Amino acid sequence: MPTLVLLRHGQSQWNLENRFTGWWDVDVTAAGEAEATAAGELFKARGVDFDRVFTSVQKRAIRTANLALDAMDRLWLPMTKDWRLNERHYGGLTGLNKAETVAKVGEEQVKIWRRSFDVPPPLEADSPYASLQQDRRYAGIPVPATESLKDTIARVLPYWEADIAPCLKRGERVLIAAHGNSLRALEKHLSGISDAEITGLEIPTGQPIVYELDDQLQRVDRYYLSER
Amino acid sequence: MPTLVLLRHGQSQWNLENRFTGWWDVDVTAAGEAEATAAGELFKARGVDFDRVFTSVQKRAIRTANLALDAMDRLWLPMTKDWRLNERHYGGLTGLNKAETVAKVGEEQVKIWRRSFDVPPPLEADSPYASLQQDRRYAGIPVPATESLKDTIARVLPYWEADIAPCLKRGERVLIAAHGNSLRALEKHLSGISDAEITGLEIPTGQPIVYELDDQLQRVDRYYLSER
Repeated sequence: MPTLVLLRHGQSQWNLENRFTGWWDVDVTAAGEAEATAAGELFKARGVDFDRVFTSVQKRAIRTANLALDAMDRLWLPMTKDWRLNERHYGGLTGLNKAETVAKVGEEQVKIWRRSFDVPPPLEADSPYASLQQDRRYAGIPVPATESLKDTIARVLPYWEADIAPCLKRGERVLIAAHGNSLRALEKHLSGISDAEITGLEIPTGQPIVYELDDQLQRVDRYYLSER
Repeated sequence: MPTLVLLRHGQSQWNLENRFTGWWDVDVTAAGEAEATAAGELFKARGVDFDRVFTSVQKRAIRTANLALDAMDRLWLPMTKDWRLNERHYGGLTGLNKAETVAKVGEEQVKIWRRSFDVPPPLEADSPYASLQQDRRYAGIPVPATESLKDTIARVLPYWEADIAPCLKRGERVLIAAHGNSLRALEKHLSGISDAEITGLEIPTGQPIVYELDDQLQRVDRYYLSER
């Protein structure tokens, strides 16, 4: 039975500061490192093992994957890093404190940006964080200027179909270390969650979510590993 | 001009204890971690950058690569881990202290095992370290029971030709984080060192060696980055 585990990165510095992060390459905190290591120890204790790891090109996810693998003595596993597993791009909101943004534009507007399915945040050309066009890691990639959750899903799912699903279909056990919204994209697909409901699905940091799948990659079960 | 950098892993626990290590998966020491980080800081300071990283499936090399990449803010670079870049397999010598082995079998015999080009160390079925056949990471791989340097070269160079050289030929800048003898294999090939001389070539831990190559991957220059 193909097994897939989703792991949101450990707490980042901007999780802690309650700022919109998106594609900005914020690192995990010491608490986030501990969450990642604990996830690896949990895998080891429960006998959950992997054949392959996928992650984004953002350091909070890569570091989480590396720390988890290290804790389970699996640093040698093949790991693929791809931008299509990156966090949702928050456009002009990137770097802003969420509470300050509420104070500035109102709670309703922020709720729309955060919780609507298909309304992207505004572009703001003067945001020091919004421009990643010059970052070499994104050379040749259609870097979005902002994304709704729908936009994020539209780049996550083709990657899932082309690169991840084939590994599962040939029996590999797969760990995906990624971000709140790229994992929402996968959860929506695998659990058949509606457009209206998916934006409310909270994915906690550092908590492995196990998907047991059938041969056609249809969901058989889904649970938090720490709760079994 | 294609650029290749060779980096031997930082000091390992068994480097420190003067024991034959080979394929045993010994980790780096705190000093080894510092060497790896210093290598990454040196890359950053000198503007030496990469497009792709190759390493072995042994944690001392993988950790060295990860620490160096982290120090230069390049955790996102693609990294391929392959057993053909592993250290020479020391067979029945694995785990033995070098000085003790000299006391036991004589300096001449140890020198032959360490420094001959094509004499492999003995098999010793009762070595607790020699048997890696059960290690999942080597499933489906023709795990050697012991290797001469010639044997090591015979699995490193086909990998070089098939997987690494094509990246360099298309202009990628490549970092190889590996081991004393897998790097000797590459140095022998790239610098045209004789069978007799290659066993005497010492490759220090954590010191990046830069190869500037022409389009046919012939050596133009070779130097320690710290000396330029």
